[in-house]
Amino acid sequence: MDKTENKKSINDFGKFGLIDHLTRNVKTKNKTTIIGIGDDSAVIDSGENLTLVSTDLLLEGIHFNLIYTPLKHLGYKSVIRAISDIYAMNGTPGQVMVSLGISSKFNIEQIEDLYEGISLACKNYSVDLAGGDITSSLTGMTIGVTAVGKVEQNNLIKRDGARANDLICVTGDFGASFMGLQLLERERKLFVKDKVTQPDLAGYEYVIGRQLKPEIPVSTLSELKKEEIRPTSMIDVTDGLASDLLHVCRLSGTGCKIFYSKVPIDYETSRLAEEFNIDPMVPALNGGEDYELLFTIPLEMVEKIKMIQSVKVIGHMTSSGSGYYIAGDDGSEAEISAQGWKE
Amino acid sequence: MDKTENKKSINDFGKFGLIDHLTRNVKTKNKTTIIGIGDDSAVIDSGENLTLVSTDLLLEGIHFNLIYTPLKHLGYKSVIRAISDIYAMNGTPGQVMVSLGISSKFNIEQIEDLYEGISLACKNYSVDLAGGDITSSLTGMTIGVTAVGKVEQNNLIKRDGARANDLICVTGDFGASFMGLQLLERERKLFVKDKVTQPDLAGYEYVIGRQLKPEIPVSTLSELKKEEIRPTSMIDVTDGLASDLLHVCRLSGTGCKIFYSKVPIDYETSRLAEEFNIDPMVPALNGGEDYELLFTIPLEMVEKIKMIQSVKVIGHMTSSGSGYYIAGDDGSEAEISAQGWKE
Repeated sequence: MDKTENKKSINDFGKFGLIDHLTRNVKTKNKTTIIGIGDDSAVIDSGENLTLVSTDLLLEGIHFNLIYTPLKHLGYKSVIRAISDIYAMNGTPGQVMVSLGISSKFNIEQIEDLYEGISLACKNYSVDLAGGDITSSLTGMTIGVTAVGKVEQNNLIKRDGARANDLICVTGDFGASFMGLQLLERERKLFVKDKVTQPDLAGYEYVIGRQLKPEIPVSTLSELKKEEIRPTSMIDVTDGLASDLLHVCRLSGTGCKIFYSKVPIDYETSRLAEEFNIDPMVPALNGGEDYELLFTIPLEMVEKIKMIQSVKVIGHMTSSGSGYYIAGDDGSEAEISAQGWKE
Repeated sequence: MDKTENKKSINDFGKFGLIDHLTRNVKTKNKTTIIGIGDDSAVIDSGENLTLVSTDLLLEGIHFNLIYTPLKHLGYKSVIRAISDIYAMNGTPGQVMVSLGISSKFNIEQIEDLYEGISLACKNYSVDLAGGDITSSLTGMTIGVTAVGKVEQNNLIKRDGARANDLICVTGDFGASFMGLQLLERERKLFVKDKVTQPDLAGYEYVIGRQLKPEIPVSTLSELKKEEIRPTSMIDVTDGLASDLLHVCRLSGTGCKIFYSKVPIDYETSRLAEEFNIDPMVPALNGGEDYELLFTIPLEMVEKIKMIQSVKVIGHMTSSGSGYYIAGDDGSEAEISAQGWKE
């Protein structure tokens, strides 16, 4: 073996490549482990139901910047992030556990604010805060959240079930959270520069709300059940629409074709993207942190899905090997690529 | 309300006080949440069995120092730490999920070493690595480990079941891990000073092993089952024998009396403590990271427990309000106190 190959830097692998690389020899042995690495949550057989467990690590400076993230919002979003993975497998979250690393720069009121946000999210989504730990940290704040949920055996929806010709559906709109972050970041820089300028966020409440206090489209999941539409695959869009769609394609062994004109983008997102001289399709496809659901349904459900207002069909799966494309109204096609190492 | 009271610093609360304070209003609502905050693991009803979930956060510079902790050992210990909480409730761990935050100072070989240790612990304890995430970090390494296990409803052992007159039992010996850490820390300082002196660790392999590669006394749990001894309460000793005993007492509503002469201390621990001019009882009672089990059994089991070589009786529970004491051979008694904020 060429020794230099081993000296690859971590960035060479990209985030998903690194996980794949490190876990390439991992084989599950316990018969209760239904799904291990690779889906939104681990799936554990616990008798009548399956138990879903997801876990997340949020680091100061990487996942959040406390200059413009109120701690209450941070607590709220930490819970959303973890339970989103349970919903994405068509499960119902029941418990979260929060581990906290805090340095001496924080006071008790700040930590109370954080817990207030955690509690509010737990209340809004009927989840119990069932444990966790607090530990000191040398360097800012670290939050670890574990969510536990359940799903009946035959209601589990995985990432790998999409088939060619399935319709690709999404909830909500995309890119707003990313543009909200750009706006907060711009205002922070202006403030650092002259310490006087107050942030000008008027007219952009929607994008900022999407960044600071995201919600999960739970009602859509109920509507799907009511209309008896059972998705063949599902994922929550946290890495970016393009990246998460490619996840589903690769695991399902399909190609895909989506349409520029069908990707839902909010007016505020477009307007702000214009202000920043960015094509709004860039944050929509690659922004991430949308906390919307992306799922596929059999083609014959096309009429039924139209009944659900909150769902948009953005394209369809294609056969294996036919590539991943986004098409313009003029018939032009571009290959969809996901960003590598990003949070 | 006096506003100044709110301005208490985090250290004023102590670690456990802070968790109590922040979670004082947390009430569990889901009927699947059997136990939330306060025991070794969360306990979730999943039909025939209970699902146990524990979660841990390990931060560089707080929980480990990479100067003397080989990454393979660190990976191993991270898993031990998480599954120890499952065993402490008399459960069997089945899965672990590991989330990693790593800064650019790490190369792929180092992360592979870490995963090698994780995999080895998973193999040795028949646990599946069932998920996790890798994220970039600005400041060193952060490891979040979630362990999932199961236990039959009537085999669950909690922290709050001890009664007055129950015998207090422990596995293994205490203080070794702490003394191992002191030794590694001393050799690190000498190395920093002259950069030439090689660490002199000969003769102290046991204490260093206890610090770097702890194991869980799983065989004792099997023996207890075999002898049909069902503990009334159980905890894993990670914060320190004194602190963890007081946990059990407070949750069970009992006092306790243990005996200096009965606390098991290894010869290497005593010898090294002497070298450091420390009373060996200090690390034994307050050192922590022993990963031994502390449990209580009814008094009538006294003859039966003698059959199990790996278990020592160190004292007994007393009635509520009679305090927490450690007694010397000369009849003197001292109050047991736990350290406040410590890892």
